[in-house]
Amino acid sequence: MERPERDAAFMARAVELARSGHGGTSPNPVVGCVVLDAAGQVAGEGFHAYAGGPHAEVVALAQAGERARGGTAYVTLEPCDHTGRTGPCSGALLAAGVARVVIAVSDPNPKAAGGAARLRSHGVAVTTGVLAEAAERVNEEWLTYARLGRSHVTWKFAATLDGRSAAADGTSQWITSPQARADVHRMRAAADAIVAGIGTVLADDPRLTARPGPSPSEDRPDGPGGVPGAGAGGRRVPVRVVVDPDARTPQSARVLDDQAPTLVAVADDADTGLKADLLRLPRHDDGLDLRALLSELAAREVVSVFLEGGPTLAGSFVRQGLVDRVVAYVAPALLGSGRSALGEAGVRTIGELHRLRFDEISPIGPDVRLIARPATHPGREK
Amino acid sequence: MERPERDAAFMARAVELARSGHGGTSPNPVVGCVVLDAAGQVAGEGFHAYAGGPHAEVVALAQAGERARGGTAYVTLEPCDHTGRTGPCSGALLAAGVARVVIAVSDPNPKAAGGAARLRSHGVAVTTGVLAEAAERVNEEWLTYARLGRSHVTWKFAATLDGRSAAADGTSQWITSPQARADVHRMRAAADAIVAGIGTVLADDPRLTARPGPSPSEDRPDGPGGVPGAGAGGRRVPVRVVVDPDARTPQSARVLDDQAPTLVAVADDADTGLKADLLRLPRHDDGLDLRALLSELAAREVVSVFLEGGPTLAGSFVRQGLVDRVVAYVAPALLGSGRSALGEAGVRTIGELHRLRFDEISPIGPDVRLIARPATHPGREK
Repeated sequence: MERPERDAAFMARAVELARSGHGGTSPNPVVGCVVLDAAGQVAGEGFHAYAGGPHAEVVALAQAGERARGGTAYVTLEPCDHTGRTGPCSGALLAAGVARVVIAVSDPNPKAAGGAARLRSHGVAVTTGVLAEAAERVNEEWLTYARLGRSHVTWKFAATLDGRSAAADGTSQWITSPQARADVHRMRAAADAIVAGIGTVLADDPRLTARPGPSPSEDRPDGPGGVPGAGAGGRRVPVRVVVDPDARTPQSARVLDDQAPTLVAVADDADTGLKADLLRLPRHDDGLDLRALLSELAAREVVSVFLEGGPTLAGSFVRQGLVDRVVAYVAPALLGSGRSALGEAGVRTIGELHRLRFDEISPIGPDVRLIARPATHPGREK
Repeated sequence: MERPERDAAFMARAVELARSGHGGTSPNPVVGCVVLDAAGQVAGEGFHAYAGGPHAEVVALAQAGERARGGTAYVTLEPCDHTGRTGPCSGALLAAGVARVVIAVSDPNPKAAGGAARLRSHGVAVTTGVLAEAAERVNEEWLTYARLGRSHVTWKFAATLDGRSAAADGTSQWITSPQARADVHRMRAAADAIVAGIGTVLADDPRLTARPGPSPSEDRPDGPGGVPGAGAGGRRVPVRVVVDPDARTPQSARVLDDQAPTLVAVADDADTGLKADLLRLPRHDDGLDLRALLSELAAREVVSVFLEGGPTLAGSFVRQGLVDRVVAYVAPALLGSGRSALGEAGVRTIGELHRLRFDEISPIGPDVRLIARPATHPGREK
């Protein structure tokens, strides 16, 4: 018996549970699960909290125990059908005797897919596509990674209302508020990698580490006074990536310190004696092939990239169609000159502009945070 | 008997009434009035609708009739004490036998002030400053005009999220949505003057007239297809002003047609045979003395100016501290190159940036409208 409104309500709860895992599950997806007993009462809830930990279904089923028999499970992502670090969730749902499984988004991962089919073949009623848009959104990083075989990219910038991120003399402290900077740090800490261009490394010598507290600087993600090192509660430390086609990173750069792993992406023809973990990539336009960079990062299980530091590099990512989410912190201020937030992005005439859509508009202290995504996106089904 | 919450509630209604007059009362202020009878019931409401028409108090008192006797009047602006096109409102309140008058904002106009004092001297209880911030806001154009002796300036711009208002080749149709453009037209029609720079006139040949419907262009306020001419319902047609230090406006420019009056502001040393209504002003920096321009416009009873067309002119207004309100329409799009929304504004280093505060953040169709005002302002008491 399908009851669409009831299904949507329980799936909304499952999406909320999935969100709790955000920033901790990489390279796994975030997943939430709600199990009802045969009478339709909530018997168990769970979410996937960290890679290697139990899957959402397993947590919820454990809580439900015998009450799961004849009941319904709501899962934000198709239950896996393979045995990885944990057993297959399809099997766990069957063993628990669940009569119906409601799924928001199908699993695009060929290794893990097939859960719905296996459940159906064992007589379980399966409904798919419920609240798919919200479930896609909560899992956007992993779905982009799984569908496109590359890391998901969030480009963050802070600028004045007229789109400037530094004054004419290069100064930029403080365009946005402490509240906005704290919000940036929260976002940064949830990413698997933090990416900056060589221009930013040479100009600001940032450490590019994630920290819990507010930063003393907007352009120096780890200026003096920061507490460098590990992210929150057992999460992986984000890897630092410098996009540096001609291998100009100084050996003494802070980004090469021992506080987090660092990759220096250089052109495959770059001649360098730099002692660092080098990633050699083809050149593209006047920089590197960034799609190749994101594929290489995905191969290293980097699901999500936080791109900051440099209008030039941001322009290259936008030009190559590789920005999946834009997070803009706009300050109530005007500069009229100085560095633009975004550099050359391959647009010659207005018809070529990069269309986005605003998904969230939030006041953050005195500033405004605008979250936008491409109007069309190959890694998004909704 | 003062009851602050009750006073605030009735004054909020008076502010709402005042708002109804917006765009129609120039060169008078907008004013709203609520009259209660002696029992505290609403007996009359009124607002000032057009210059030469009855004042808010007179309208509300006429509606209340005998019920005003012993009652209370809430007025957003101190009742006038002079006989202009209509009799003094202080006298009307006294004649009606009102026992108490509650005022939000004192009248800064020396010709009209003194109403509160006269009422008090006749034994009327007078309370001032109630809901002053809201009453200042609804009347900001006129209060700036009255206090500073110059026109109030609203600078409007439309730009991408990265602060560009045209692509590298100069094209700009359509960065913002039809909904945003319709909103611009509504704002423009409420102004007494529409101001553009000579750069915009030479590049786009705009007509600079206000029209009710949506515009076919963002940069050409009156491109082909528009319905030029009068504003809404009996309002004055906004005067068109071209800021043109060296008198380069072509005699054939659309802005010189007969659809609305036009002033061409030129430098006092400009050598020109242009057949137009010229306003000669001192030079300032690389343009004109814009404060002098706004004083001259104020002398012509231009209370409010709508500034569009040209990052250069906008930069000059910002640099000279003459932008009282910024209305930014931000489109969910990225350009990365092309014309910036704001040109040089005199900021050399970050400490000199022009600080604003965001007062309204509204989605308008797919775009976002941000209304900001200077963090500090000489014409604002709240």
